[in-house]
This record gives sequence, structure tokens and C-alpha cells, in this order.
Amino acid sequence: MITVLSGGVGAARMLGGVTQVVKASEVTAIVNVGDDLVLHGLHISPDLDTITYTLAGAINPETGWGLVDETWNAMSSVQRYGGITWFGLGDRDIGTHLYRTQRLADGATLTEVTADIVRAWDLKVTLLPVTDDPLRTKVTIRDDDTPPEGAEIGFQEYFVQRHHDVPVRGVRFEGFETATPAPGVLAAIAKADVVVIAPSNPIVSIGPVFAVPGVLDAVRARRPNVVAVSPIIAGAALKGPADRLLTELGHESSVVGVARLYSAVAGTLVIDEADADLADAVRAEGMRCVVAPTIMRDPLAAKTLARIALGAGNQR
Amino acid sequence: MITVLSGGVGAARMLGGVTQVVKASEVTAIVNVGDDLVLHGLHISPDLDTITYTLAGAINPETGWGLVDETWNAMSSVQRYGGITWFGLGDRDIGTHLYRTQRLADGATLTEVTADIVRAWDLKVTLLPVTDDPLRTKVTIRDDDTPPEGAEIGFQEYFVQRHHDVPVRGVRFEGFETATPAPGVLAAIAKADVVVIAPSNPIVSIGPVFAVPGVLDAVRARRPNVVAVSPIIAGAALKGPADRLLTELGHESSVVGVARLYSAVAGTLVIDEADADLADAVRAEGMRCVVAPTIMRDPLAAKTLARIALGAGNQR
Repeated sequence: MITVLSGGVGAARMLGGVTQVVKASEVTAIVNVGDDLVLHGLHISPDLDTITYTLAGAINPETGWGLVDETWNAMSSVQRYGGITWFGLGDRDIGTHLYRTQRLADGATLTEVTADIVRAWDLKVTLLPVTDDPLRTKVTIRDDDTPPEGAEIGFQEYFVQRHHDVPVRGVRFEGFETATPAPGVLAAIAKADVVVIAPSNPIVSIGPVFAVPGVLDAVRARRPNVVAVSPIIAGAALKGPADRLLTELGHESSVVGVARLYSAVAGTLVIDEADADLADAVRAEGMRCVVAPTIMRDPLAAKTLARIALGAGNQR
Repeated sequence: MITVLSGGVGAARMLGGVTQVVKASEVTAIVNVGDDLVLHGLHISPDLDTITYTLAGAINPETGWGLVDETWNAMSSVQRYGGITWFGLGDRDIGTHLYRTQRLADGATLTEVTADIVRAWDLKVTLLPVTDDPLRTKVTIRDDDTPPEGAEIGFQEYFVQRHHDVPVRGVRFEGFETATPAPGVLAAIAKADVVVIAPSNPIVSIGPVFAVPGVLDAVRARRPNVVAVSPIIAGAALKGPADRLLTELGHESSVVGVARLYSAVAGTLVIDEADADLADAVRAEGMRCVVAPTIMRDPLAAKTLARIALGAGNQR
């Protein structure tokens, strides 16, 4: 049994690798929901959907989000009315949100709806939102203009609307105090042979997962079998603002910085070959360090990385 | 100034005729919202949209609802998940509902959102939902099976899901007691030169309009200038279940039955040439009666009918 703590794109690729190494039915992803939002009345779960669509081979390969072969007619109408268009929603993708929203309104949990969506795509992996409770990542940005200095905005306002190109002074996870782990989350961590922390953004993808009370302790209890894959390669994020966020929030944008964030919960850090010279510095943070090619440019690269990560976590 | 009490398809055509006779900027439609529903999280206003799309020349000519040149990709996704598909929503049409839902969530009234949607389609008519408050038509059906005898269902469950082919024993307008007329509604009735009751379903289209406290009295006060166009021709409805509903609820499915429903509020009833032999029976109900071709099969027919109706209502 393998459990993967997951954000969106990087985790989706990691899961694509892991499911080549072990049977998909033995793989559980515990997925960030801090990116979730309600927009146009629709409950949108970007990370859950990115993983589902990726594993189903239906992700839009150009964007890394949304569905392939999309049409954009609903958004064209919204644009006609002068509505909110900065968060792109393709028509097929909207169908996922329509279904999720109706089911939630009917009283289903996000866990239940997610299981049904995953099943509809013929996937055998288990996708668990880290919590069924509302958990929303909020970002306080440095900005002279609008909103004023120190104003707090929703994660997608930061990430999509502002293209994550505005400096950040703080991140918090609204609702975490009263959130509880979704059914199966703690068990999936406790029973896993290996727990993988995917190469997702440590602050805004993995951060919300650890923010749910009980999750961090559960992972820490498995530390020898916990393997984190660094999302930072040669000081930079492959995609997204992880590098700048780390720096802006006082961390180091390097594999050493990642090691400091994860050393309490993960026994091993997998770093890229480009950072081989930092392996000893990682070890100095109290983690084992594995150097490997970590860029999952194709399914074979993802499989190779998964095999290395799972091997590293298979400790007695 | 002309004010038209409106349901969906029949009213849309009537308004298409009226706006050929007087300037669109002098025409106000007061529109039924009892058909509105929240589905998939979206606030859908079928009658408002049917009128808007029709006047914009964008209605789907085959269905009489929805937009022309539609795609159905969102619904295909919903179908993949086994979600609710009996209420068809095209992708472009969904954009209207996305916009409306977001605006309502942001605190706008349905009146305000409707005005913006109408403006976006470059229409000059004023469309007023009869109320900004929740008003929902509920139908109690006779049914041996599911739901059980006498069960109450939402209007669209009756109209669309069951194709209005199940007998009805009662209709009520949930929320009417506390609903108030939307801004401009009472004034549009009071100030109109002529008030037209469109050839919409008297029970479930015009019924909810009159159910909003204050509207019936306002129309009754204008009785000499109120002209109803019969939706019943030769005992039958051109479209929809008006004939059966009238019969099932104890009325007569004829222009005389319509006259009895409207005689308290409308001075004149326009009936079709097919019912010319019933003109005296209509007059016996205390209304003036105008016989005219009432089937609006094309814009010219709608214009002709509008000219006759407006002429009949232009009483001192």
C-alpha cells in the first residue's frame, strides 16, 4: 500500500509513476483541497481534478489543467456578460463541477463525490481529499495598489488571476482549526508501506494537507517510511511559485530549504541530480538523501522516479 | 408604455410582436419566476432566458428554449458521472446561469442581473422578474407509483422530467406569501397605456405573477386597459399542458374558461378565429371579446396580433 500526499500537477505525474510500479488499487492519494473554490456557484477542486484527469489520460497537455479537446462556450457567454473569466473553465470540465456541486448540495461528502468521479473515469486509485470540511488557502500579498498592502486574497486570486507574480508575505489555511481528516486519511497514512510527499508546492499544496489536525502527527509517526521528493531543482520550481514563496516566507529556495521543512516528518528526501552537491547538506538536516533524476518529462521518467522513491521508503 | 405579463415561449413571441409595434424601450415584461430552479448549483431562470434569447434572435428554433448553435459538452460530462441530465443545459446557456449565479452570490438582485443580461444582448426592452424573492411553483401530481399519490414535486420535475404527462391535482406557489413585487413592477402596471396578459399558461405562468401580493390588485385597477390573449385555441394549448391543467384543476379548457379566469382583471380577451363562435360566451363573462388570428407562426403574425391587442387595450 502506497500513500501519496498530493497537490496538483507534480503529484499527478508522481502518481502516474507510482501506478506503474504498484497496482493502482494499492495507491491512495491524499489531496490538497486548500485550492478549492466556489465560483459561479460551482464547487471546483482543482487538485483533485488535475490528478483525476491526468491519471485518466484526459488532461489538457498544453495547460497541465483542465481536459483535452475542450470547448469554451460557457466562458464565452460569461465574457459576453462581463462576468468572471480569469479562472478558465472548459465546457467538459464544467460538467465535473456541475456534478460535484449537485452531489454536495444533496448531502454527499467531497470524499464520496470524488470516489464516484474517479470511478467514472475507470481509475483504480483511491483519491481522498485531505478533509471534507471547508479548508481554504488565503494569501496575504505585498501590494502598493489594489488590494492595499497586506490585503488577503483567495489562493486562486493569487495563483491564477495574478499569475502568482505578486510578492507574498503570508499564507494561512482558513478553517484548518476545525477541519478533521476525511474518512480513510489517517488509516491510509498509518497502513502504507511507504508514504510519498509528492514534489508539490511545500507551502500551498502540502501545507494545507499538514494543517488538518492529526495529519502531521500521523505522517511523523511513519517518518522512516516517508519519502519526500523535492519540488525545488537547482533552486527553482519546475512550475509555479514554490521557489519565490519559499524565499518570501523566509525559507531557502533549495533542496536544503525543503529538507528543513520536511525533516521532522520524512526520513528521506529525493533530490535531483542537479543538486547532487547539496546531498550532504540535506543529510546534515537529519534526513537520508537520494539523488535521482526527478524531472518527470514522460511516463518512463515518472516510473523511474517512483521506483527510486518507493525503494527509498521501504525501510524496516 | 406597454407592459406584458409573461411566461416563456408564448410571451416571448408576443413581445416580439409588441416590439414591432412600439419602441422596445417603451415595453416592459413582468416575468414569471415560479419556474426558476437551482440545479447543479446554478440559478436557472427559464422564462427570463427564453424571452431574452428569443428577442435577441438567439433562441434555439427547434426546441423553443436554450440557445442556437449550442454544444452539449458539460452535460456529456454530467452524464459520464451519472448526474442529473433530464434538464438539458447547453454550454452557452450554462454561461448565462454561471453569470447569474455569481452575481446573485455577490448580492445583486435578480432584477439587476436580468437588466445586465438583457443589456449584454443589446435589447432595449425592460425585463422585470415579478419578484426578487424566492417563488417556486410546486405541483401535486396524481400518481400511483413514484412519488406516491398526491406527492408534490417541483415545477421542472413536472414539466421537463415528466414531460407534463402526469395528471395534476394541485398547484401552489411556494414563498408567495412573503414575496414582494420587484422594483418597478407595480409602477410598470400602473403607468402602462396597455397591460397585455400574454398567451402563456394561466395556471403556472401567469398564476405565479398574480400570486405575488399587490400584483393582482394593481392589474385589476387597470382592468379597462388590460388585454389578455387566450392561450387556448379550439380547446387546446398550442404548446405545453395548459389545456390539461385547466381541466384537471376544475376549469374549462376553452376561451370561456380563460375568460372566467381573467374577467376580474382584464377588460378584453383576444380569442382565435377558430373560437369565433364562442365570442358571445366570452362576453357573457363580462369581458369585451376580440376575434383575431392568434397563432404567432412568424414575426408578421406576431406583429399583427400585437397591433390588435394593443388597439383593444387602448381604452379611455
